Amino acid sequence: MNYSFLDKNQKRFVEELEEFLSIPSVSTLPEKKGEVEQAAEWVSSRLQMAGLENVKAVETKGHPIVYGDWLHALDKPTVLFYGHYDVQPAEPLELWDYSPFEPHIENGRIYGRGATDMKANVLLPIIACEAWLAEKGEMPVNVKFLFEGEEEIGSPSLADFMEQHKSLLTADLAVSADSGQMQEEQPATMVSLRGLAGVQIDVQSADGDLHSGLYGGAVPNAAQALATVLDSMKTKDGKIAIDGFYEQVEERSEEERADINQNQPRIEDFKKSAGVYNIVGEPDYTVGEQTLTRPTVDINGMWSGYQGMGVKTVIPAEAHAKVTCRLVPNQTPEEIIEKLRRHVEAHAPKEVKTKVIPLAGKAHPYMLPYDHPGLKAIEQAVWTVEKKTPARLRIGGSIPITGLLEQHIGVHTLQLGFSVFDEGMHAPNEFYRLNQFEKGQKVFVQLLHELSDCPF
Amino acid sequence: MNYSFLDKNQKRFVEELEEFLSIPSVSTLPEKKGEVEQAAEWVSSRLQMAGLENVKAVETKGHPIVYGDWLHALDKPTVLFYGHYDVQPAEPLELWDYSPFEPHIENGRIYGRGATDMKANVLLPIIACEAWLAEKGEMPVNVKFLFEGEEEIGSPSLADFMEQHKSLLTADLAVSADSGQMQEEQPATMVSLRGLAGVQIDVQSADGDLHSGLYGGAVPNAAQALATVLDSMKTKDGKIAIDGFYEQVEERSEEERADINQNQPRIEDFKKSAGVYNIVGEPDYTVGEQTLTRPTVDINGMWSGYQGMGVKTVIPAEAHAKVTCRLVPNQTPEEIIEKLRRHVEAHAPKEVKTKVIPLAGKAHPYMLPYDHPGLKAIEQAVWTVEKKTPARLRIGGSIPITGLLEQHIGVHTLQLGFSVFDEGMHAPNEFYRLNQFEKGQKVFVQLLHELSDCPF
Repeated sequence: MNYSFLDKNQKRFVEELEEFLSIPSVSTLPEKKGEVEQAAEWVSSRLQMAGLENVKAVETKGHPIVYGDWLHALDKPTVLFYGHYDVQPAEPLELWDYSPFEPHIENGRIYGRGATDMKANVLLPIIACEAWLAEKGEMPVNVKFLFEGEEEIGSPSLADFMEQHKSLLTADLAVSADSGQMQEEQPATMVSLRGLAGVQIDVQSADGDLHSGLYGGAVPNAAQALATVLDSMKTKDGKIAIDGFYEQVEERSEEERADINQNQPRIEDFKKSAGVYNIVGEPDYTVGEQTLTRPTVDINGMWSGYQGMGVKTVIPAEAHAKVTCRLVPNQTPEEIIEKLRRHVEAHAPKEVKTKVIPLAGKAHPYMLPYDHPGLKAIEQAVWTVEKKTPARLRIGGSIPITGLLEQHIGVHTLQLGFSVFDEGMHAPNEFYRLNQFEKGQKVFVQLLHELSDCPF
Repeated sequence: MNYSFLDKNQKRFVEELEEFLSIPSVSTLPEKKGEVEQAAEWVSSRLQMAGLENVKAVETKGHPIVYGDWLHALDKPTVLFYGHYDVQPAEPLELWDYSPFEPHIENGRIYGRGATDMKANVLLPIIACEAWLAEKGEMPVNVKFLFEGEEEIGSPSLADFMEQHKSLLTADLAVSADSGQMQEEQPATMVSLRGLAGVQIDVQSADGDLHSGLYGGAVPNAAQALATVLDSMKTKDGKIAIDGFYEQVEERSEEERADINQNQPRIEDFKKSAGVYNIVGEPDYTVGEQTLTRPTVDINGMWSGYQGMGVKTVIPAEAHAKVTCRLVPNQTPEEIIEKLRRHVEAHAPKEVKTKVIPLAGKAHPYMLPYDHPGLKAIEQAVWTVEKKTPARLRIGGSIPITGLLEQHIGVHTLQLGFSVFDEGMHAPNEFYRLNQFEKGQKVFVQLLHELSDCPF
């Protein structure tokens, strides 16, 4: 299919993006509830206008989830597009050059809160569907849309929604446009994310703090006991010593290791960028492998007793730590939380009481198999439009959506978006490149085509 | 000597105490500087009135130090009386039944800030000297007085003053009346105190906090490194693992251990009073020995990274702990601080930077030898007045004065005061028992006599 429909309507698409960006759908602010609903309505209308069917904004305990589909491609795969129409708060307002909810175009960039995360990307698959339906009267695949309004607050309603609407959401593959690339010149698709699981560890050694002069030498110290627990989690050579922690971890293929290691930063560059004096971590893995493919445990915070100036000779009765792990296939947050709990129980000195409380913010690890047909489809679609092979992006961080889709709908997720790393996501003066907007529309048009013959 | 002079003048002594208590000599409050000086003047006049010579209030960088002497007892020992004329703030004022600086007598108790800590005790040796000089025209020993006005703020000027006035302060023995007893019925003398030394440990692992998704697995974590350092300070069975920590520690005599252990609390009572679920500490020592005669290391506080609600996936670049040790003879604060420093250097993971900063609030440990002639003198003096043998009080806490006197003047310190533990030291409604006031004067009169034949 050629791109004449896109070219003809480009001005309108940009105006629509401006309209969408002008709705302050800040999901975290209770006073913006009306605006978040307005954005859900806007997305619903836009889907209908594109020719999608069964469009509805479904109420949840939080903000609405927008659904739409087109299911007339007999014997063809069904693709579920994911995105979110909510945005981060714009504060601090004084750091914006223009009003964050009055979009402004300058030098081929559109400025506004939500431009790169992810309202422009939300429009890409909608516009691609519209183009197919307008030009051909049909699509090469079946499509479903799932747009939530709570991504920026941790997607609290999404898992329940998926469970309650399993059959509605059945698909062969998901595509999330909540993605991007590191450099403007290099398209990319995200193939690997680490998961996340963590706990707060609470240690109690006495009913209350004690005077070290009166009791010191005979009573336990909560901070000391916590130090013992925390120290026991790691070996001196950088391995994780939590019992059974590596049990489920699978080694990456030689092909993938080679792929990662060819883009390895130089150790000195890595140290400089991190601002560290030395690197640590598991022996036998490169820095790239350590940060992208290996699980971690990190103390994110700890506190106990007196933190003020000078000296206070107290024996603290309580000590606390927050500990999170980055997970890799096939670890699960639940498994790791249970292993953390057992480890604390096994390694805490017996004279203290401990509590291990799971932290919110779980995410399953995710990896798109190297031989997944969707990966080939993306590569072909990008190549057709850009004459470049997209980079396979691996992220050491965590995005819950891929894990949720795998867990509740049972599908893999392709991650393809046209945001660039420098566009101020979550920051003032957020923007999006309009040439990426156009390019993205074309790639999504091609992607629908490429997916139609995929053997799922 | 009989006590007729004391009996005859008791009313005046109580009036003087009221006058002294009505001066709000709160050393920590800059706006009370004038009142602190007024108290120094009051003490100077009182010494002169008692017949002491060479009385002077010496300026320091802080509050004045009051000196006085009587040195005409040829070939007799010289006794240096120590005390402080400053008091703690009276706040919170609303918790006082009477105004803290308008002394009030009720049921044989005198109420007011400074009553038990330690203005009444300050008067005891002065009145004893006055009685001797008034009745006999001379004293059985030479005496010197050293009263400071900065005890409640950590005695910042005292060490310098002692160094600068070494010959002025030369003595055979010191007597501190800044002491007391646990029960009203049981006189006591303090024979053992633990010392105090501590450091703040600062760990830095990077120039700034890092994102655990981007860097986790390859970079050091300051909190983890601190946990390693802190855990290395103790063995699992409750011993201190700081290299060389016990080197200077001397075992107590069988006599002293027996003495301590006969007043041992029952383990269950101790656990209940401390509010702990289990006791810990060095094996082979009883709880009494652990808390009174053995050195300790305690983490008083620690902090690193994120302490708020929920999860923040940060790798903290800094971690901090405050660690103090209780010391026993012959440990010194300087030695222990140096050992802590070396231990941190030796045990910190090499990928982080550490700093070890000595904390203010050092105190030397103190122990009056069991065979010290002064101890016999106190026992005899108390027996003569009360027909009771004073308890030998050991304190697990720290009071710097005994260590300072040993270090700078080279004398042992007898600690004899008539405060009782329940008299609200540092608290609202502080008081002092007037029968203890009378008894204390008599014991000090006797003590001067008993010390005159001591072989120092």
